Amino acid sequence: MISSAVTRSDLPTVEDVRAAARRIEKHAIRTPLLNSPTLDAKLGGRLFVKAEPLQRTGSFKFRGAYNKISQIPEDRKKHGVVAFSSGNHAQGVAAAATMLGIPSWIVMPKDAPAIKIARTKEFGATVVPYDRYTEDREEIGARLQAERGATLVPPFDDPDVIAGQGTIGLEIAEQCAGVGVKPDSVVVCCGGGGLVSGTALALAGVMPGVPVYAAEPADFDDTKRSLEGGRRVGNDPAARSICDALLSPMPGEITFALNSRLLKGGLTVTDDEARAAMRTAFVELKLVVEPGGAVALASVLSGKLPIAGKTVVVVASGGNVDPALFAQTLGC
Amino acid sequence: MISSAVTRSDLPTVEDVRAAARRIEKHAIRTPLLNSPTLDAKLGGRLFVKAEPLQRTGSFKFRGAYNKISQIPEDRKKHGVVAFSSGNHAQGVAAAATMLGIPSWIVMPKDAPAIKIARTKEFGATVVPYDRYTEDREEIGARLQAERGATLVPPFDDPDVIAGQGTIGLEIAEQCAGVGVKPDSVVVCCGGGGLVSGTALALAGVMPGVPVYAAEPADFDDTKRSLEGGRRVGNDPAARSICDALLSPMPGEITFALNSRLLKGGLTVTDDEARAAMRTAFVELKLVVEPGGAVALASVLSGKLPIAGKTVVVVASGGNVDPALFAQTLGC
Repeated sequence: MISSAVTRSDLPTVEDVRAAARRIEKHAIRTPLLNSPTLDAKLGGRLFVKAEPLQRTGSFKFRGAYNKISQIPEDRKKHGVVAFSSGNHAQGVAAAATMLGIPSWIVMPKDAPAIKIARTKEFGATVVPYDRYTEDREEIGARLQAERGATLVPPFDDPDVIAGQGTIGLEIAEQCAGVGVKPDSVVVCCGGGGLVSGTALALAGVMPGVPVYAAEPADFDDTKRSLEGGRRVGNDPAARSICDALLSPMPGEITFALNSRLLKGGLTVTDDEARAAMRTAFVELKLVVEPGGAVALASVLSGKLPIAGKTVVVVASGGNVDPALFAQTLGC
Repeated sequence: MISSAVTRSDLPTVEDVRAAARRIEKHAIRTPLLNSPTLDAKLGGRLFVKAEPLQRTGSFKFRGAYNKISQIPEDRKKHGVVAFSSGNHAQGVAAAATMLGIPSWIVMPKDAPAIKIARTKEFGATVVPYDRYTEDREEIGARLQAERGATLVPPFDDPDVIAGQGTIGLEIAEQCAGVGVKPDSVVVCCGGGGLVSGTALALAGVMPGVPVYAAEPADFDDTKRSLEGGRRVGNDPAARSICDALLSPMPGEITFALNSRLLKGGLTVTDDEARAAMRTAFVELKLVVEPGGAVALASVLSGKLPIAGKTVVVVASGGNVDPALFAQTLGC
């Protein structure tokens, strides 16, 4: 199903993902596909973790941001870029813009983790704070865009951003082939759906027939319900979750148009299950994962997606978590 | 200088390291060489971190253990292996032995981190506890060896173990070439000296002319002082450090014979500098590093080895740290 406002010609293709891979090749980190034999023995299956906390800026968001910003026409570059983000997209945009010599303004929720705000500034951006529950970040972004003549870099609902995130799918396919496995399924963390739609798009092109699932926080399961109902539905504005990276209000038009064609379904995890996955990543993988970055891993560890006898790839999408929250999560 | 009890023919060569690389290829993880552009900007140089916390069993020790154990003659395999270790070697030996279908007994200090003891058991070993400060672990290991007919897997002073650890040096050279850099120096964490001697041996063979340094805790600087004095000297038995992985009493005979020929020198860091490096690894690299695994990184971050305008590779050697200690180290 293609959502009404989006036509098939607006949708990125696997060729767009390949082009994105060429653009980011020398700038993004080809993150490793981690595996813990200890964890596999406990699970009775084979689990591979695409480790995007090790990506430049600490999350996958750099990929889409760089792919988008590097394509801005020369005469528009000096006007800069604007983005609205809970934090990881902010850092990705700030770092990519600075690398390309372009100024950036980032609209960030006031309650974003302090580490994400601080790092966005470090990467060279000007941070514009807003209230996540009373103000419309898209409106603030659009106003800055109009005032400055800057190019908006949407967090997910953009073909170039989606194609950039999709480079993870290409790498997963190559890395799986490198270790001689074909996964039975791939699970990807999902907020607005840019990462999962891009990854599913790439995988459909290069490793067809592998089911791809979106993993979401239990009270932010808009993609799961939208997939089930065949149309985009939003989340309860009163919903809260520890998974700050995944709190978008509803699926994007473009992302849902892709996801409704490409995804097998949605999986949800509680905040406690996300915390448990962060602890497991610490003990077994030595990887720092933030709450929202851990939901795909959590969906497997909590048994939502059975793994016994199977090979499953999960994307750990980011690791930008405040030290105090991380310490608390370790149970200390 | 070759130490009196060791002749040149006892020493492993770069060919032994290459053979080890072939033996472990399908079993060990080719750990990534991490880089943080943010950290580089702060340091004014380029820092690459060989991320051995991501190795099977959470430290580099699996490499040497697998290389050694896989070469045990068939008729001796059923008698098993014995090792004495503060924890990381224990896990490496336990995992390698279990993978090869061989029983293992591990002599471990009673005060080793709980996570290391628990994981050694998980990997299939029988743990034999001892007192680090009043008992001789080598004697206990030798007794078990005699009683069981088992093969001793020394933690560092063994040509096959050293050759296995040296595979890190081959990978560093290949990965540096892959990103088009030649390091100005390489810094490696040092306890008994197996990792640094193997790494230096490999680098001398495949990337000659790059200075290699041993990094040690300030009160366990036996390799630094031995290099300076031209003969093996030990540490004060009363010395203590948070770096539990690096508390060996003096350099090995074989490791020192290699290190005295191959190393540029030694660098020392305080426990507080090791803790600060763990925090930086958490924030900038999203990597869980244990205290002893962080000393090479700490030697650069603390300015002991100036990096401005240079490219330096440090080995982060392990990540097996108790959650409570890690949380405390984050300052929470």
